[in-house]
Order: sequence, then structure tokens, then C-alpha cells
Amino acid sequence: MAFATSVSKKHIQFIAFQVTLIGTVFCGNVLIWPAEASHWLNVKIIIQELIRREHNVTILVSNASLFITPHAETSERFEVYPVPSRKNYVDSLIKEIVSLWLNNRPTALTFWQFYKELGKLISKANKMNRQLCDSVLASQDLMARLQRDKYDVLLSDPVTIGGDLVALKLGIPFVYSLRFTPASTVERHCGKMPSPPSYAPAALSELTDQLSFSERIKNIVSYHLQDYVFQSYWGEWDSYYSEILGRPTTLCETMGKAEMWLIRTYWDFEFPRPFLPNFEFVGGLHCKPAKPLPEEMEEFVQSSGEHGIVVFSFGSMIYNLTEEKSKMVALALSQVPQKVLWRYKGKKPETLGPNTRIYDWIPQNDLLGHPKAKAFITHGGTNGIYEAIYHGIPMVGIPLFADQPDNIAHMKAKGMAVELDFNTMQAQDLIDALNVVINNSSYKENAVRLSQIHHDQPIKPLDRAVFWIEFVMRHKGAKHLRPAAHELTWYQYHCLDVLAFLLTCAAAAVFIAVKCCLFCCKKCGRIIKKKKTE
Amino acid sequence: MAFATSVSKKHIQFIAFQVTLIGTVFCGNVLIWPAEASHWLNVKIIIQELIRREHNVTILVSNASLFITPHAETSERFEVYPVPSRKNYVDSLIKEIVSLWLNNRPTALTFWQFYKELGKLISKANKMNRQLCDSVLASQDLMARLQRDKYDVLLSDPVTIGGDLVALKLGIPFVYSLRFTPASTVERHCGKMPSPPSYAPAALSELTDQLSFSERIKNIVSYHLQDYVFQSYWGEWDSYYSEILGRPTTLCETMGKAEMWLIRTYWDFEFPRPFLPNFEFVGGLHCKPAKPLPEEMEEFVQSSGEHGIVVFSFGSMIYNLTEEKSKMVALALSQVPQKVLWRYKGKKPETLGPNTRIYDWIPQNDLLGHPKAKAFITHGGTNGIYEAIYHGIPMVGIPLFADQPDNIAHMKAKGMAVELDFNTMQAQDLIDALNVVINNSSYKENAVRLSQIHHDQPIKPLDRAVFWIEFVMRHKGAKHLRPAAHELTWYQYHCLDVLAFLLTCAAAAVFIAVKCCLFCCKKCGRIIKKKKTE
Repeated sequence: MAFATSVSKKHIQFIAFQVTLIGTVFCGNVLIWPAEASHWLNVKIIIQELIRREHNVTILVSNASLFITPHAETSERFEVYPVPSRKNYVDSLIKEIVSLWLNNRPTALTFWQFYKELGKLISKANKMNRQLCDSVLASQDLMARLQRDKYDVLLSDPVTIGGDLVALKLGIPFVYSLRFTPASTVERHCGKMPSPPSYAPAALSELTDQLSFSERIKNIVSYHLQDYVFQSYWGEWDSYYSEILGRPTTLCETMGKAEMWLIRTYWDFEFPRPFLPNFEFVGGLHCKPAKPLPEEMEEFVQSSGEHGIVVFSFGSMIYNLTEEKSKMVALALSQVPQKVLWRYKGKKPETLGPNTRIYDWIPQNDLLGHPKAKAFITHGGTNGIYEAIYHGIPMVGIPLFADQPDNIAHMKAKGMAVELDFNTMQAQDLIDALNVVINNSSYKENAVRLSQIHHDQPIKPLDRAVFWIEFVMRHKGAKHLRPAAHELTWYQYHCLDVLAFLLTCAAAAVFIAVKCCLFCCKKCGRIIKKKKTE
Repeated sequence: MAFATSVSKKHIQFIAFQVTLIGTVFCGNVLIWPAEASHWLNVKIIIQELIRREHNVTILVSNASLFITPHAETSERFEVYPVPSRKNYVDSLIKEIVSLWLNNRPTALTFWQFYKELGKLISKANKMNRQLCDSVLASQDLMARLQRDKYDVLLSDPVTIGGDLVALKLGIPFVYSLRFTPASTVERHCGKMPSPPSYAPAALSELTDQLSFSERIKNIVSYHLQDYVFQSYWGEWDSYYSEILGRPTTLCETMGKAEMWLIRTYWDFEFPRPFLPNFEFVGGLHCKPAKPLPEEMEEFVQSSGEHGIVVFSFGSMIYNLTEEKSKMVALALSQVPQKVLWRYKGKKPETLGPNTRIYDWIPQNDLLGHPKAKAFITHGGTNGIYEAIYHGIPMVGIPLFADQPDNIAHMKAKGMAVELDFNTMQAQDLIDALNVVINNSSYKENAVRLSQIHHDQPIKPLDRAVFWIEFVMRHKGAKHLRPAAHELTWYQYHCLDVLAFLLTCAAAAVFIAVKCCLFCCKKCGRIIKKKKTE
């Protein structure tokens, strides 16, 4: 077959034009509305990648922030605004929340009492959060400056409320980065993600996807109770949102305008469940191959011989334990054959064994990725769990607060963790748990299986997260992924109006049929009667 | 900070080991259970890519197949088994189905009549399909040979029933490649994909995601009617499946065992709706940049000047029209300023204008990707539609049968197509429709927008499809993506047992409360009476 070589140049030009149009290397302006603690640690990774791809990133943060502070290494810009709160107030509030959870882990019986107490703290947090919003939205100078900087997208952590408001006021699309919201209320009701209560466990319920009859009752009740809790504690934002946007609206309706929901989990951790095209599961985006350890630490690790090491951390928010607790923990650790690297800022316990070293900070990812790593003792934060999954290290989970009990329940169900109760555990429990996860090969096998699943994705989580942020910048949104459910009322969504109509029709049909029958019977009866009388 | 350079080599070795473990270049054995016509054209692209990646591909096909025939170009292996049917019987059955649809397009009023007629043809098709299954499953020689060849995965098109049975008998995982099943019954009931009837339109309903009250009634009724149709016409397979597998089972339960569902659409075409982690939307995987045209064709195309060309095809299954119809169509085409390239095997119409050329076959993708392409007249097959989306060319849709009316309804809703009724359209209608899609810029703009969405994916559809087939080979399945819904009965799935229990509890509580109140009232009444009598 002869080809028209004369036009092939035109073709190439046309294709090149299309490629240019679509695959443009786009240097956008990204505004960040961050949240504290581990949330920030995770979003920071996305920020670094955005900067690496030559986007301009600005972090909008209050001067009372504890964790979100400028540092020299990266080139993100910090737009720091003043708030009436002080850092120590923020710190004490966070500590109060942690302590409440630690000492009153909610059960079926203590749920109400717990949420009553938590409600008071959430009210305080809401007040503080409101200060953040006011300080930004009411500052004409700041808003004018942000307007002038022409941002293309706002990346918000919905745990700190208000990012969506800032985006809407600036007239730009926004993307959420989140782990979850209580009972996934926001994802379900505001994001319209369907959650069948028969096998999609409610967040914080510590349930899995294998639910018995009574667990399904617990699950369905959890969903409704937590919806109620959400409305009770966060419902106050509705009037604020209406006021700011100058029209009647709700927090939920506004949050539902997010273009993309970047969820910080994946199917290695999550139980398979329905989701929507504008939800992307990017768990473990912060994980990296291990780097070499500092020399002194490497020597200690190598001295563990064939027994290997145990990595132990309660994360960035728990610095110390009671003296009694730390002594008990140190005693337990002293009795295992492994060397232990323990991140701990408290007073050195007297019972500390020669096999255990305490550090203010440890390179957790590098230790978990070390060939000598045998087990990880963790509070069960999502970031740490993902580092363990990435490197295939089984865990002893000692959950403390928030989503941690739920996270450990997931890992237990996947056969990669043993759970201990922080309040009731004894030294022997910790020794036994470590023995099990290290010597029962199924834990390591499951950890390696999950690690393989995690690594074997068509595209890395961080690349997916950044891809969708860039997509929203390129296309000024991702409307083609937004379900029409957002335009329906709750009764339309559940087709209750259709069902009511169909039931009415059916009832009317039955009524007419019965009336007709009765009429006929009557008629027949009369005719028979008449005939008889004749 | 000093680093332990002495151990860095060990690290590198460990990381290299991990990479080897996970990213192994895996040359697997893939067995294909294909379907006829356009289904085959699509799966062939996946096969070619699998071969390019050095997998061994075997296509299991009967000697009565019309479209699935060996050809010299590729290196796939054909395992041809004999069946009692003849090619002309298969051909006439397909023609009967097309003709029934063409002459009796189902409406709300003619739905029952249509499905009664269709039912007879489906029964014939089922019989023929049963012959395929029997010829493979009952042939001990063939099954032993397949067993010996040690396949890693079976890729099946569920339109031809039985691929799942072959996979289960061989003890290998299977993956589906499909466009849809009627009313998505198989996806919904067997695959457990949730489909909210309030905004997820039933397949074949020609509805969009923007549903009025009456359309929601139509949608919910469509779902249930088509479920009924599915059970009526395909229910007979249940006993066959039970017999082959040697235990009581159903077609649906067995289909539900698919590891992955590769759906041949994407969100450029589909309305956003919930789906599951083991569903991957890979629509347009066959699309490629345009290649240069044959010289004579290029000359004709270039002669169109600024008016450009219209590409016209009714796909691979409609070869000719009635003389009257072809004259009318040719007359209409002769009156547009564009040059027209018409794929048509029938008798040359007398009214054919000098601007129109008829071809037995056209390089459709290359023509649609040509800079001169202005519009596409199409029957609305998914493959053709995706080529138009890929190249951003607006369409005049003249749907003929099966999913084509539904496909054109999607494209109309996305603002990229005008629809004409094949049975009632007149020459002027075709002229007007062409004028609109070419001269009303919104059609081109929407086509370009959808094209940009299609091109702007984190990873290409073909790569995604092949990735998940390879994943299933590497991990012997994709169990981590399989929802627990598969283990639930229908009433457990909908939590009807929990609701019944909770309602019973509530009723009992009300009953007890009322009884208590009545008892108290009675007691009080007696006391008052007693006091009064005192």
C-alpha cells in the first residue's frame, strides 16, 4: 500500500499540537490549607513533590500552629496570619483530646459519656478553628493578596475546617486530602460515597468487612449515631458558612464541592468497598526505600545478630508515659532476644535492659526498611502503619486514640498485627505479642503479601495524588468525575418519592380492584337473589 | 551526620531483592475466551499488547466463528475446536437479532413484545453457546491439553457464556472484559457493583444521570424488568453450571468469581457512578494516533479544502441498506459542502454525489484523526465512538441495535452528538444534523473537551487493562479487591434482617410502653375511684 508521505509532516504537527495541548508541563500556583500533626507530615510529602514538579506552593498557616512551621530545606512559601490563640493553648487542647481518648476509650456502653466529654473539646476546637477562618476571610489585605496571586487550586485537609470557604471566596477549585472523617459522615453524606452497612465498616467502629449479625447491628447503629454526633458538633458551622457565602448553605453542601478526595489509604489496608470516580486512594504516598542509618545506630542494629531488631514508637504526639508504665514496658523489652530502638522522650526507666536504646527521634522508615527489622511496636497511626506495610514488617499495635484502634483492627484482620490494650497490658503481654509476630511465620507472610500488593500498583500513590491535583489545575476542576447525586435531595437520592408514588399506585390499583370485585359480587348476589325470589 | 557506608551495599542488595520480587518481568500463559464482532476487535488489541509484552496467548475458538479467525500478522495461538453449528447458522442468527432490533426498537409500550421476540433468539443463541461449552468441557483431550499448558489466567468476554467454567475447571483465575450486560444485571448482582437508580441510568434505557421524577420511575422499573428478563432468558444456565461444577450453584454466583472486571468505557463516556475496586474502566484502549492515509484517499481528503471531510460508517455488521434508504442517504450527502468517505458494501446508489466516495472498508481511526475530519456519521458502536472521542470529532448518531441507542444518548448528553432515527429520518434531517455538528461550535468544543479528558489519564487504558491481567497472573488473583458482599445473602446485603430485628425491638418496646401506661392508668383510675368511693 502506498502512503501519502507528503502529508505525514502535517500529521506529525497535528499530533504534536494535541500532545502540547494536553500534556503541557503546567507550573501552577497551589494554596495549602493544612491540618496539624501527622496530617501535616503527610501533606508535606505532596507539597515537596509539587515543588519538585516546579509548582509554586504557598502554605496558609496561623502563627499559633504547632507543627506547621517553615524550614530551610524546602522552597514552599509560608503565608503566616495572626490569630488570637496562643501555641500553648493549641498544645493543651490537643493533649486534652488525646488524654480523654486514652483514658476513656469508647465502648458500646461508654459511647454516650465519651462523646459528651469529647463534645466539649470539639466545641473548643471549633472555636479555635473559627478563629483561623475569621483571621483569613475577614482580612481584606490577606484575601486581596491571595486573590492577586492567582492560585489554580487549593489543597485542603478537611480536619481543619474552612479551606473550602477560602477556595470558594477566591473562585478556585479545591481538592481534599484526608484519612477519614468520623463514621465517614463527610465522605458519605457530603461526598456521596455509598457505604453499604452490611460490609463497609463504619470508621472508628473497629469492625472489619466480615460482619456477624450482631456486628451488622453495631455497624448500622454506628453509622446513624455518628451521623448524629457529626450534626450535633459540626452543625454549628452551617450558619457560619451561610453567612460567609451570603446564601443559605451547609458545611456539608460546601464540602461536597471538592473536585477530588485524596484518601490516605489503599486496598492493602482498606477493606474493598464501593467508591466514586472522584475518590482516589493514595495511602502510603509518603513511603520511600530505606536510607542508610547513622553509623552509631547501624552498629547497634548489626549487633542484634540473627535475632534482629524491634522498632518502637508512639508517634509524634505521645512523648512520655507514666513512670510505672515506662518501667513495665522497659522490663518487657529487656526480656526479648532482639535489640530494641525506642523513640521516647520521657525519663529513662530504671528497668531498661542493655538490649534497648532510647532515642528522642528515630529514622523510623529507614529502620523498618532495614534487613534486620523483625517487628514494629506502634500506636497505629496511619503513617507508621504504611511504613510497616511498605517494608513488610509485622506489628504489635498498642492503639491510643482517634483512628488508631480502628487502624490496628484493620491490620489484625489482615493478619499482620497483634493488638494490646494500652491501659491493661502487662509486661508478659508485650513479650508474648512480640514473640508471636516474630516467630509465627504467618504474620511475616501476610506483611510481605500486603507489601507486594502495595508496591504492585499501576502508578505510585504519590504520583496519583499529584496527577489529580495537576489535573484539577489543568482543567479548572474534575467535573466529569462528579456524580449527579449532588443535585438530588436525600429522598430523591434514595428514590423514596418514586417508591411512595409506586406504592400509592399499587394501593390505588388494589383498592379499585377490591371495589370492583365487591361491586360485582353485590351485583351477582342481587341477580341470584332476584332469580331465587322469581 | 556520618553514614555507615560499610552497610550501604547490603541495603542496595536488599532493595534490589525487593524490586526483583515485586517487579519481575513475568511471561505468563494467557487463555482467551472471546466473543464475536466488535467485542473481538477490542479484545484483539489487548491480545496484541500481551504478546508484545512476551506473554503466550492462546485463543480458544470454535470452527463456526465468523470474526475470530487466525491471521498471519500476530503470533497468538488458535486452539480451534469443532462444534455442530455451521458458520452460516451463526451469521443468520446474528442477522436476525440485528434485524429484530432495527425494525422493532423497544419503547415503553413495545418493551414486552420486543423482549418476547428477542427471547426466542436468545434461546437459539443460548443453545449455540451451550454447544461451545460442551465442545470444550466435554472434550477430555482438549481439557487435558489446556491443563497441561498451565495457563495463568483466562480472559473472558462474558457475552459468550462459559469462560468462567473453563477457568474454574482448569483451576485458574479469570478476568472479564466487557462493555456492559443488560441493565448491568451481571455487574450489579453478580459483581456486586452498587447502582443507585436515582442517578445511575440502567443500561439500554437511553437515560442520562439527570433524571426527572418520571425518568427515575422509568429507571427503577427498567432495573427490575431487566433483572427479570435476565433471569428468564439466562436462568436456564444455572442447572448447567451446577452440573458442570458438581455442586448447586448459579450462573451469577460463578460470574461473580471474576478477579477483575475490565469495562470498555471511561468517565468521558460514562456518567460518574459508584463502582468497586475490582472494576477498571478501560474504554478507548484500542485508540491510537492516526497513521497516514493511502495516497488516493489522502488526495480525495485534501480536495475537500476548508470544508473538510465527513466519515461515515455503520460498523462491521451492517453491510448494506434498502435501495430506497441508500438513495435517500446518498442524496443528503451530495448536498453538504464536505467530502464524504462512506464505508458501504451495498449497491452504489444512483443519487451518489461527486463529493461522496464509497469504500468496502475505511481506515476509520486514521480518517477521524485527520486534520480535515469535521464530523462522523456513526451507528454508535462503542469502538467507533471512542475513536471519535480520542480525536475530538463530533458525531451524527444513527443508532441501529443493542447498546447503540444508549451510547448515542450518552454522547448527546455530553453535547458531542446529534441523534437521528434510522427508520424515520429524511434526507433533510441528515443534512441539518451534519450542519449542526459542524457549524455549531459547541459540538466541537465538547468533543475536544472529552478528548482532552480521555488523553489526560494517569495511565493509558490499554496499559491499565494489561497491568491488571498481569497482576492477576503474578498474584494468582486479586482477592484484596474483592468486596465481602459476595459472601452475603441478598437480605443480609440489604441489612433486611437487621432492619426486621430493629423494627421488632422497636415494636416490642412500644408495646411494652403502651401496656405499662395502660396498667398505670388503670391502677391510677382504681385508686381515684377508690378514693372517690371513700
